[in-house]
Amino acid sequence: MKPVKVGICGLGTVGSGSFNILLNNAEEITRRVGRSIVIEQVGARRDNDACDTSNINVTRDIFDVVNNPEIDIVLELIGGTTVAKELVLTAIENGKHVVTANKALIAEHGNEIFAKAQEKGVIVAFEAAVAGGIPIIKQIREGLSANKIEWLAGIINGTGNFILTEMSQKGRDFEDVLAEAQALGYAEADPTFDIEGIDAAHKLTILASIAFGIPLQFEKTYTEGISRITAEDVAFADDLGYAIKHLGIARRSKAGIELRVHPTLISHKQLLANVNGVMNAIMVQGDVVGPTLTYGAGAGASPTGSSVIADVIDVARTLTADPTNRVPHLAFQADSLSNVQVLPVEEIECGFFLNMTIKDRAGVLANITQILSVNDISIESLIQREREGSELVPLVVMTHDVKERNMNAAIAAIEALPDVAGTVQRIRVENLA
Amino acid sequence: MKPVKVGICGLGTVGSGSFNILLNNAEEITRRVGRSIVIEQVGARRDNDACDTSNINVTRDIFDVVNNPEIDIVLELIGGTTVAKELVLTAIENGKHVVTANKALIAEHGNEIFAKAQEKGVIVAFEAAVAGGIPIIKQIREGLSANKIEWLAGIINGTGNFILTEMSQKGRDFEDVLAEAQALGYAEADPTFDIEGIDAAHKLTILASIAFGIPLQFEKTYTEGISRITAEDVAFADDLGYAIKHLGIARRSKAGIELRVHPTLISHKQLLANVNGVMNAIMVQGDVVGPTLTYGAGAGASPTGSSVIADVIDVARTLTADPTNRVPHLAFQADSLSNVQVLPVEEIECGFFLNMTIKDRAGVLANITQILSVNDISIESLIQREREGSELVPLVVMTHDVKERNMNAAIAAIEALPDVAGTVQRIRVENLA
Repeated sequence: MKPVKVGICGLGTVGSGSFNILLNNAEEITRRVGRSIVIEQVGARRDNDACDTSNINVTRDIFDVVNNPEIDIVLELIGGTTVAKELVLTAIENGKHVVTANKALIAEHGNEIFAKAQEKGVIVAFEAAVAGGIPIIKQIREGLSANKIEWLAGIINGTGNFILTEMSQKGRDFEDVLAEAQALGYAEADPTFDIEGIDAAHKLTILASIAFGIPLQFEKTYTEGISRITAEDVAFADDLGYAIKHLGIARRSKAGIELRVHPTLISHKQLLANVNGVMNAIMVQGDVVGPTLTYGAGAGASPTGSSVIADVIDVARTLTADPTNRVPHLAFQADSLSNVQVLPVEEIECGFFLNMTIKDRAGVLANITQILSVNDISIESLIQREREGSELVPLVVMTHDVKERNMNAAIAAIEALPDVAGTVQRIRVENLA
Repeated sequence: MKPVKVGICGLGTVGSGSFNILLNNAEEITRRVGRSIVIEQVGARRDNDACDTSNINVTRDIFDVVNNPEIDIVLELIGGTTVAKELVLTAIENGKHVVTANKALIAEHGNEIFAKAQEKGVIVAFEAAVAGGIPIIKQIREGLSANKIEWLAGIINGTGNFILTEMSQKGRDFEDVLAEAQALGYAEADPTFDIEGIDAAHKLTILASIAFGIPLQFEKTYTEGISRITAEDVAFADDLGYAIKHLGIARRSKAGIELRVHPTLISHKQLLANVNGVMNAIMVQGDVVGPTLTYGAGAGASPTGSSVIADVIDVARTLTADPTNRVPHLAFQADSLSNVQVLPVEEIECGFFLNMTIKDRAGVLANITQILSVNDISIESLIQREREGSELVPLVVMTHDVKERNMNAAIAAIEALPDVAGTVQRIRVENLA
């Protein structure tokens, strides 16, 4: 068969990784596909020292690539949601298949992009958009396709996991580890996307859509970051047998779909609690397969390139298939997506870890437990410690599952008590069962 | 599109699980595929109370199914390698696609079956043959297709892992736990296939073939079971920071391919060391993705059925594709398989854990360390303990990596020492890096 011709737009981290895999693993890829996959053109504003483009047609105008009639598959690896969107829509309009690593683009504009792709009979593949080198899109969309997916929970932001791991293993403070992460290049100069959960929310939006067969609904994802987690929270959680991880959680309940990104206590016995550093992992619970977990590198040039090129290989194999009989973009047929509602966070039930500072005097604990009881909140465990030379002591309470609405009411009442200092720190708890 | 019609051969554990998934998740499956998948006929020697076949065409002759002209896809779920082989070859001859969960059939006769399938332009899908509900075939063959796979290591027999987990967590003896596993139905009355590693060797044969692009070579797999592991070995390993797991390991080295199933010490820090009970997990190291791990249920009606039906969905989607452009059975094109040699176990290097009983007198330790040194074996750690009222004491030695040939020579020399009682227990150690 004749070679498949790809055009690469963007030669940054993921672009360079993908470029080098196509060159370095060309023989292995040809043995797999039965035809070669060649780089017909690269569009990039500047060269990248990591890539030898001396034998490649390079253009400074990325739109040359999507308008090149020789090209079968366009790799959109420039990032962002403005030029990237125009680029992808133009490629589709020109009848080209697209492979992208762009989580923001898919999460925010995927519904429009996939509709256009279906109209034109082309594929938009996006394995690299979620969890870097982990083929989790393929796993949920194809490997577990016999299942009703019940829930999924994942560590899907490596920067955040690196910070929480360092805080846990070395007792360090958040700000201190963040500064190191920035120095190491794990975190951007403006780390908001990573530490405030927006990056994870983009990825969760995509995972939830393919797990449940619902449209992409980024704007309905509850998103909470890790910047307010303290070394003390981490230490108390550890005492109780829990790790604090920044999880993206999507769950199908009778009332609707839960979509939420927040710091979460999970038992040390869970494999997820032992996923450390910049690594990613996703648990998926299917109705027939039960619990599964997949682990690997969630970022970086080569791991993300691994998923980009796997998608290229998939698309190459699909070139001769009937477009109406392919794996659908969002796992379910476009006309079979469900309009089940995404729940407001107040309607979601989970356990809570509460960490507060109280005056060490009679009656305070009774007042607090009374407030919890009035709000139908039952206590699983409680730690109260003396603090040398201070009348203010920490009180940590772990609760059983309760609706967030009730917890909000209880916390407001507790914070209004004269013997409670400052605000109550509240972190959700999941048993992943 | 018109429905896809499947015929199920065998209504045992996996057959009943697959049957029920097709019925119970029919709506979800139709939403995914865009057409319905219906059970046209079931062939089974007897009914299964777990399945309501009242509206199904049931035959007692399974060959009716493969000869039924209405059927698109045959599910071979009878097991064994004689009738099953004839059934699969007849189905292929009749132009039908086949989905099977039969690891022994694929590992021992896959080369012949795939050649026949390619000749006839049909697919033989076998995700359920390895690690039950974990879509590991798809992950290696498609999800990681951009990689040169460097090695893989897996807990791929749930019975063995249940036994080792109980020995580790409760200090129980092998025979005691095996009896319980048989009572629980995890182990067969004749447990040889599970505890002597034959089942794991079948699965490893398949994984190695699709990882490296080599023909299936079951007969060249080094296979060692767990029946000689003692509670004492497990306790000493734990003291040193290691778990003992029964691993299937395939590695590509400069000299050739390593294919081996044996008990293995791995650090407690590894996720694999924390995979307990009947669960399975496989680590795969790719050259660009780095380390990955996938975890899930390795057996049982529903998990294995999950993989069977995922294969059915895949095949349904492939019905309109050009047969020359599909995912190849063994990941690489049939004419591109490599003839790289599988290494004899003596040529393989790894660390060793040695557990022996010695007389507690001067000079013994010097003699043993001298023998190790002469054979180019360096010691990583050593435990020698007193045993109250006995002149015989245990000595445990952990070594750095060494070629098995050298270790064999050293062990023979150590066992010949007059102050060493009985034989030396030897368990391999892997650092999984």
